[in-house]
Amino acid sequence: MSAVVTLTTDFGLTDAYVAAMKGVILGINPGARLVDICHTVKSRNIAQAAFVLSTAYRFFPEGTIHLVVIDPGVGSERRSVILKTSSACFVAPDNGVLSYIVEQSSPGPDPAETGSLPERQLGPEMEAIDITRPQFWRSPVSPTFHGRDIFAPVAAHLSLGQPPCDFGEPITSLKTLAPARPRRKPDGSLVGNILHIDTFGNLITSIRCQDVLPITGTLVTEVGGRIISGLVNTYAEGEGLLTLLGSNGYLEVSLRDGSARDFLGAGIGDEVTVQSLAGG
Amino acid sequence: MSAVVTLTTDFGLTDAYVAAMKGVILGINPGARLVDICHTVKSRNIAQAAFVLSTAYRFFPEGTIHLVVIDPGVGSERRSVILKTSSACFVAPDNGVLSYIVEQSSPGPDPAETGSLPERQLGPEMEAIDITRPQFWRSPVSPTFHGRDIFAPVAAHLSLGQPPCDFGEPITSLKTLAPARPRRKPDGSLVGNILHIDTFGNLITSIRCQDVLPITGTLVTEVGGRIISGLVNTYAEGEGLLTLLGSNGYLEVSLRDGSARDFLGAGIGDEVTVQSLAGG
Amino acid sequence: MSAVVTLTTDFGLTDAYVAAMKGVILGINPGARLVDICHTVKSRNIAQAAFVLSTAYRFFPEGTIHLVVIDPGVGSERRSVILKTSSACFVAPDNGVLSYIVEQSSPGPDPAETGSLPERQLGPEMEAIDITRPQFWRSPVSPTFHGRDIFAPVAAHLSLGQPPCDFGEPITSLKTLAPARPRRKPDGSLVGNILHIDTFGNLITSIRCQDVLPITGTLVTEVGGRIISGLVNTYAEGEGLLTLLGSNGYLEVSLRDGSARDFLGAGIGDEVTVQSLAGG
Repeated sequence: MSAVVTLTTDFGLTDAYVAAMKGVILGINPGARLVDICHTVKSRNIAQAAFVLSTAYRFFPEGTIHLVVIDPGVGSERRSVILKTSSACFVAPDNGVLSYIVEQSSPGPDPAETGSLPERQLGPEMEAIDITRPQFWRSPVSPTFHGRDIFAPVAAHLSLGQPPCDFGEPITSLKTLAPARPRRKPDGSLVGNILHIDTFGNLITSIRCQDVLPITGTLVTEVGGRIISGLVNTYAEGEGLLTLLGSNGYLEVSLRDGSARDFLGAGIGDEVTVQSLAGG
Repeated sequence: MSAVVTLTTDFGLTDAYVAAMKGVILGINPGARLVDICHTVKSRNIAQAAFVLSTAYRFFPEGTIHLVVIDPGVGSERRSVILKTSSACFVAPDNGVLSYIVEQSSPGPDPAETGSLPERQLGPEMEAIDITRPQFWRSPVSPTFHGRDIFAPVAAHLSLGQPPCDFGEPITSLKTLAPARPRRKPDGSLVGNILHIDTFGNLITSIRCQDVLPITGTLVTEVGGRIISGLVNTYAEGEGLLTLLGSNGYLEVSLRDGSARDFLGAGIGDEVTVQSLAGG
Repeated sequence: MSAVVTLTTDFGLTDAYVAAMKGVILGINPGARLVDICHTVKSRNIAQAAFVLSTAYRFFPEGTIHLVVIDPGVGSERRSVILKTSSACFVAPDNGVLSYIVEQSSPGPDPAETGSLPERQLGPEMEAIDITRPQFWRSPVSPTFHGRDIFAPVAAHLSLGQPPCDFGEPITSLKTLAPARPRRKPDGSLVGNILHIDTFGNLITSIRCQDVLPITGTLVTEVGGRIISGLVNTYAEGEGLLTLLGSNGYLEVSLRDGSARDFLGAGIGDEVTVQSLAGG
């Protein structure tokens, strides 16, 4: 069957770990269409992987299987899970790497703290499985490479149409990272953070389009000690530092023909403040 | 349909921009065969992208669709175009990134200057379309990511057999970069430039095989203050600095078992001079 | 035919050399499933390519064609070969890059020194061919890019079911790198070397699981002036420096939540010593 299987890992480009997973998948489903999302996630950086995945998964055809292996806890007590939404299926360690999926597909109440990472209840349109049945795994399972020996074969069997419930026990919540939401200050301004910096040096902030659109008057953005006035539509508009509503749905700070990261010396987590210059 | 669709971008390897485009294509044509040409083109470097594309497209099967998204002017007035040649189809912004295709397929008179980049008339065997009809685009179109919302769906529909004329209005010229041609000096020597430096540190010059082949006697090459005498056939022949006719059809300068770039401190654009040592 | 063809090269990610090979393959076998193993092997580093390939090929389905182009001797006297084992087919220059395959599939007597690299006789279950018949090559053949003009078309025709013997003359030995085997010292300790360092900074040593498993008592490892006591099962177990039996079958040295390479300043080839602390 020609289902699409995507791969997102922190395995880098100089080892054959990704290729080993692909070999395993093609051995089970020779018709699988393999697409790399990203393999250069920083080692063990679950938040970065969660973000990168969130910017891509919505553009894949219905029924796509997304295999996500950022797994610093491999072999420990962390669960391995399948998450099925109305349009896609995810196979990943239960360590927060699916946070945006859980939240975007099913924005529920804020997660309760239980243990090291908060657990979030899944909405009724989602199904999750704790992967426990070894009959679909490679044997023996390496304690240090579940990507190859558990996640890849599970994804391959899912791509052949095996229902999620065959792989283990149903569960109703997943661990999620605390959502990176902007905070409103008493003066009415909104304080967000830099979530991601892309290849071009554009700063993608945690301030979403829907946070900004209700603002009337001129939007004034402060980042790295600089003030940017107004919003542009494209990277080729205006001069110097620009703010715009990016293609992923977040407010972005960009430098015309350059890198805003380098120009501002900006880093992930840095604060970005927006407010309205009323009638400006 | 199982047409090949290649992708060339400056999107790098750490974001999911390329994956989003692939997801869009597979959603429209599940049978498309996706092949990456290069995603590490330097940000906004149209000349580098044009060169890299020119070294690969000829080796793909007839009917291949080449999607090229180096697009610093995304969302501005620049046109989005389809270029159909006798053997392939290109989808790209009209910013010079298809210069080698236009020139190699249809070497016409030198382009006339019209606006910021010269326009080159297309030969009779080529067809070009200004992409204007939104019915094949994603909706809404992000003003900053036409790669995902316009170019990818257009390439996918082309790969399903939709004729180019369905996507917009015919045009007869495309913007091209000035061709990087060697110049002949009064003393008969030929002065070219370094066009590209590959992973091995080989210096690929703008001097083409056909420029060198008529030269009789020993070819003497000067680059970075060094003189190299004669031509070898392979990287494993001779010692030290070598010149040879490379697999892309250009004169190359190479260092045996090393990097000519590092050895010479060479950079793109540096001059390379060749002349004949008559009877040498 | 939908055979899998993998690609391993030192061509890097910024040129279109890999894409040119893929175009050639798809022109001959439009159904080939192309999978990248690794293209960031260090320039001309045959030992690294041989190791990386060895960690991936076993996980691919039966009948997979592995195309390996680390070829500093391209165009010189080195042979181009096909190696067929009971489960896969390899196409590569005969320069040692298939050493692990020859050794893992057919552990024979130690290779005899003949010329610059020792030749190893192949076991009876393996078939090797010296690629000499140009009818399957591209024409003309560039003397500097056999990957595109010889190896890729040969791999493509193999993937269509053409038998290896059609491509040239049978041969019975291949050049191999001296196997990186640990040495036993008079005090009973075993001295190996760092074979490979992965993206996470894990140090993969030449000491194999089967070298270590017979050891009774606590395993004590010395590397970079540090002593590590015992073995753990996973990267998430214990604190600081860890040793474990890695997913590729070798003893690995790892740093909990960090890079053992950076912590120890370790490099490829560095010595690693293990011994038993009897009854420890």
